Formats: sequence, C-alpha cells, structure tokens
Amino acid sequence: MDERVREHAAVLVDWSARVEAGDDVVVSVAEDAHELGVAVAEALGERGANVTTLYGSDEVSRAYLKGSEAGAEGDDSAGDGDAPAFDDDPAVERALFEAADAYLRIGGGRNTTATADVSSETRRAYAKARRDVREARMDTDWVSTVHPTRSLAQQAGMAYEEYRDFVYDAVLRDWEALADEMAAMKEALDAGDEVRIVTERDDAPDTDVSMSIAGRTAVNSAASVAYDSHNLPSGEVFTAPYDTEGEAFFDVPMTIDATRVRDVHLVFEDGEVVDFSAGAGEDALASVLDTDAGARRLGELGIGMNRGIDRFTDSILFDEKMGDTIHLAVGRAYDACLPEGESGNDSAVHVDMISDVSENSRLEIDGEVVQRNGTFRWEDGFEG
Amino acid sequence: MDERVREHAAVLVDWSARVEAGDDVVVSVAEDAHELGVAVAEALGERGANVTTLYGSDEVSRAYLKGSEAGAEGDDSAGDGDAPAFDDDPAVERALFEAADAYLRIGGGRNTTATADVSSETRRAYAKARRDVREARMDTDWVSTVHPTRSLAQQAGMAYEEYRDFVYDAVLRDWEALADEMAAMKEALDAGDEVRIVTERDDAPDTDVSMSIAGRTAVNSAASVAYDSHNLPSGEVFTAPYDTEGEAFFDVPMTIDATRVRDVHLVFEDGEVVDFSAGAGEDALASVLDTDAGARRLGELGIGMNRGIDRFTDSILFDEKMGDTIHLAVGRAYDACLPEGESGNDSAVHVDMISDVSENSRLEIDGEVVQRNGTFRWEDGFEG
Repeated sequence: MDERVREHAAVLVDWSARVEAGDDVVVSVAEDAHELGVAVAEALGERGANVTTLYGSDEVSRAYLKGSEAGAEGDDSAGDGDAPAFDDDPAVERALFEAADAYLRIGGGRNTTATADVSSETRRAYAKARRDVREARMDTDWVSTVHPTRSLAQQAGMAYEEYRDFVYDAVLRDWEALADEMAAMKEALDAGDEVRIVTERDDAPDTDVSMSIAGRTAVNSAASVAYDSHNLPSGEVFTAPYDTEGEAFFDVPMTIDATRVRDVHLVFEDGEVVDFSAGAGEDALASVLDTDAGARRLGELGIGMNRGIDRFTDSILFDEKMGDTIHLAVGRAYDACLPEGESGNDSAVHVDMISDVSENSRLEIDGEVVQRNGTFRWEDGFEG
Repeated sequence: MDERVREHAAVLVDWSARVEAGDDVVVSVAEDAHELGVAVAEALGERGANVTTLYGSDEVSRAYLKGSEAGAEGDDSAGDGDAPAFDDDPAVERALFEAADAYLRIGGGRNTTATADVSSETRRAYAKARRDVREARMDTDWVSTVHPTRSLAQQAGMAYEEYRDFVYDAVLRDWEALADEMAAMKEALDAGDEVRIVTERDDAPDTDVSMSIAGRTAVNSAASVAYDSHNLPSGEVFTAPYDTEGEAFFDVPMTIDATRVRDVHLVFEDGEVVDFSAGAGEDALASVLDTDAGARRLGELGIGMNRGIDRFTDSILFDEKMGDTIHLAVGRAYDACLPEGESGNDSAVHVDMISDVSENSRLEIDGEVVQRNGTFRWEDGFEG
C-alpha cells in the first residue's frame, strides 16, 4: 500500500473527524475506494473506535432507483407522475446515523456518471423521502473525501499516477498552518462591510462586482469538524454576501445537471441577477436561475486558499478550494455565516462558479486591497 | 450481466427472505460480490423495500482487527492477555440490525484466507463483544449466500466459468419441489426413534452407527426463512440425535481452523466419542473434541438432498447439502430440533463431517431402509 493512503486515513480520522476511543463511526466506501477503506478501518481500530462500513456504490444506488421506477410503473398513488413512492421513514438508515458519532464518506466509484439514466423525478422523490436520514447524517461529525480512482482521473483529464499525486498534494497539507493563514482571511471578512472583486480581461467581459457582508460571519474551512468544515481536502474561507451589484465573469468550466457550462457572465442589480449569458450550457444555467427567488441571489462568496490544488479537475471538492481562485454561488447560504436566527438566502439550489484571480485581479474589503493577482497582503511579494 | 445473476437475486429476495413492500432490508456485499449486490438492489427496488448496503469486506475487517491489536499493545486493562478490549455495546450496528426486517449476506471476497493472520484471541474477544449485534442479526429474516468469485473457484480447485455453473446449478433449483421431497424425509425422521447408517468400504473402516432421534424434530431446510432455513443454497434435512453407538468414517475432506483434515474415524460408546483417528490433521480434530463435554457428542444428523450440488468444493455452504451425502456434526445442536425448553447438546463448537453414501450404503429408520446407495425409497430405482 502506498504510504500516502495511510497518511490520508490518519488526516481524515484525526484532523478532520477528530475521532476518539469509543466513538461509533460509520464509513461509506465507494466501489474503487477499497484501499482507503482498509487504511481507515486500521486507523479506527488503532484509536479504539467502533466501525460500521457501508458500501457506497453508485451502481447499487442506480439499480435500486431503476428497480423502484420499474416497480412503480403505472402506480401513481403518490400523485407525482411516474416517480416511485419511496418510504419516507427508512428505519434502518435513520437508526444507523442517529446512533453514529461520525460519518466518513469515501468517494471513488468506477464511473462518475453511473447514475446518469435515473430520472430527475426519481432523484427528487428519493431525496425528499430521505430528508430525515440526511438530517441525522448531518448531525454527526461528517467528513467527505475521495480516494483517487481511475474514473476521477479520467474526469480530470489526467493519467492515473498523475491524478494520485494531485490528490495527495491537496489532502496531505500542514492543515494547522493553513488554518492559521485562513484565520487572517476570516478576520478581514468578519471585520469588513463590503467586498469588491475586480478582474480585467483581454478576451472576455471584465469582473467588477460588489457585495455587502456586514453582519455576516466567515467560516475558516480547514478540513476539520473542529472548524465547521466537512470536506477533505478543504482550504477555503467563505461567507454569505447580499446586496450584490455589478458584473462577474467565471472562466472555470463547471458541470450543472450533467451539462457542461462555461464562460458564465452574470449582471447583478439590487442583489439579483438581471442578465446572464454562457459560452456553453446557457439553458442549464437558465434552469438553475429560474428555480426560485433565491436562485437569482448570491448565497456564498468563497476564497480558495489551498495551494496544493494547482489545476481544475472538474470536481467541486477540489476546484473551489484551489489557491488563486474566488467563487460565488447563487442559491442557498450556509447557516454558519448568518446571525443567530436569521435565515439568509433560502433556495433549493446552490451552484458554485469559479474565477481564476491569479492575474489582473484584486479583492478589496472596504476599499482596501486584501489580495492582488492571487497574493494576499500577508504574503511576500504582495503589491498593495 | 449474466441473466443467472438476476435469477439468483430473485430467489434470494422472494423465495429465501420473503421480502415484501415496505420491509427494511440490510444487504452485505463482499468485495467481489458487486454484481449480485446490484441485482439484489434492483430486485428490492422493484418490490418496494428499503435497502441499506453494508460493505462486507474481509480485508476491511482484518485491518480493523489488526489496528485494534496494535492500539491495544501493552494495554491489558481487560485482563485477557494481548487481545484488544472491544466495546461490548457497538451502538450503530445494534441499532442497524434491531431496525431491520431482513439481512441478506452476500459472500464472495477476493481471498478466502484474508483474515488468516488475526490471532484467535482477538477473534474471540471481538465475537464476544459483538454478541448483542449477532443476536439482533439472528432475530431478522437473515439469509446467507455467495456470489461466485475467482477466490471461491480457486478454493474449490475449479476454473472460474466452471465454478459459476456449479453455483447456479446449486442455487437455481425448483425449491418448491425440493421442499416437498424433503418434507417426506422430515416426516420419516419425525416419526422414527432410531437411525442407523451403514457403509461398507474396501479401503477404509466401515461405518455402522446408530443414534436415537426419539422426541426430536427434523428441519426441512429448503433455503427459505419460511422453513427456518437461512442458507442459499440449502437442501438438507437435519435433526439432533443422541445416545450414539458404533463407528463412523468420513471420506470427505474438511478444513478445521485452517488445517486440512481428512479420513476421520470416530468410535462412539454411550453417546460419546471414545476413540478417534484421522489420516491428516488429527491434532486439529483432537483439539475440537477436547473443547468441552458436548464436543464429544453429536449435535446434528443431516441428509444432503440438493442434487444440483454434484461435487465437493471445500465450502460447508455447499458440501453439506450435496445429494447422496450424510453428515454428522459433533457439538452444538440446533434449538429448532429440540422439544420446547430443552437445551440439547450445548457446546461451543459445531463441526460437520461428511460421508459419501452413493455406494454400498444404507440409511435405516427403526430398521426400515429409507435410502440405499443414495436413492430414497420414494424415488425410481430404489432397492429396498
């Protein structure tokens, strides 16, 4: 076993999930994530934790959903068209997560599009029926990571060995040091009232967008439940902006509902998207923006600070944390960023859009430049 | 997908586990049993059941147990030598099985000896700590089966394609018809008081052994929870004999605690083994017989009636159900065979030993021949 697999397991168990002796830990292992599953089980045994291992197979999920569709054919007792009527109290899964202290999800299937032929009606019906299960799962110390697989390498357009190096560069950081650095960014955002992002481009619309962050709290997402952060890798600082004005261009491609979307341009007035375009996938973008009222307003401003991630791999787990990037998301805001009791932007969607800010860019807070061309003001080489 | 995989799934879900709409079903999928896991998930979706999928990986189990050993090194707080002190109330797994209606275990790992280097102290400590989990699991409608894998083919000494044919011949039976035939055998055993087995051999000791079955109830093990039968394939009728006299020779090799044992010869007096020998592995046999008082008395007499199984494959799931075989087990008796409230042979072990009865053999109940040279009295060609 590559020693980095064991190091990945140790970061996941100790830094990310903070597992202690006696904890009841549920681990979900995707089809090709066996090796990391083995290393995590070994680490949990060493720590004196209990482990229950789920098989997180997308192909099994697809088979169950397609079987449910076939079983429901012609039966519309739930009145929702052809979608199967799923049991909305699946006792085993609820009991499982209610009894768990931590949940470690290890992605890495054989095919990133394994569930592509499941209808969106069925997906929605299933997600709706599993709401209690999802809530019980989110109430644990949950962390989501991936084992580098050939299917993820393929999605990233990379060779397998090359992709493994990429993943371990992103995951095996000095998280303590990165958390300290990100604390400076969080401090600047928490103290500020207005953020402005400016990027000048030769071959595309410029970005010049301003938003209020007054009264909002930034999350130092340092890949640990101790920081309210549930992804490994992480390495971003994010908050929940509002009252957005101006225009923004996103040069990093993304995938929305299996459609490739690129070169998104948004125009904001009074906090809402009033005009938009995309170089590809404009219909998918339109469909997102039309979901509900919140889908036209921002829910997140995120600053990518993980310099171990040095390229885009068509995976939001990695892309949005890349150093020298900033992302904005339309849709739902995270509760952790909002004042106690305030609901913020409440939407059914949350779609991240990413900009490379390594050149001709600056991030200002209350008129003061905090990042220029990717370099933060506390770093060597910063030009204020 | 081979259509037989789907047929296997249908037999497992419908005939064996009797799954109905709304049932909460836990499925455990071994490392290389993915394909059958997919087919079972599809079938459960079609039936309208809920499914939770566990990863039944022996390599993950080994890693957890070895990790626990490493973590416990030098810590003997439990006073049991070097064995790890496992939590005796693993909340997640208990909650999981307590909420489940059915449990389908699909074996088929990558290596049938994957846990060979885990110490017996650790195994025992783990099994002891999981007693409540095991009881909750046994309280469900549980069924154990295997997906044909290369590792099982190798253990059987067979080519992969050949082994797949073997498994499907054993599993895809007309179970209804076999259950009817086995009912005749159960009836004969339930009505009888004494069983005598006689086999004359040229090259080995003869078998001539008698035992009482008065007051005992035979189980028609027809591969369905509706018949108190939890294996797929099954196809045996078994009861709990006592007061055994005579001698028996077992020509089918077996594996006891990773030791190959063959040509076992047992001599019974007053219900107990008073002399024994083996052509190989005699120490392993002696160790079994010395476990406790019950280990020297019989716990089971089983009649193999699945003619889809036509060869020995070094797997008790198949071997003991083979047509034209009879097996005797020393050790623990099954409660289902005993009068209400009677405990029967209570031992920590249960070791099955198998004889080929296709030639020079007869099975008598109360002096009447019921099976001769493998042919039952209700079959064509029976010579009484």
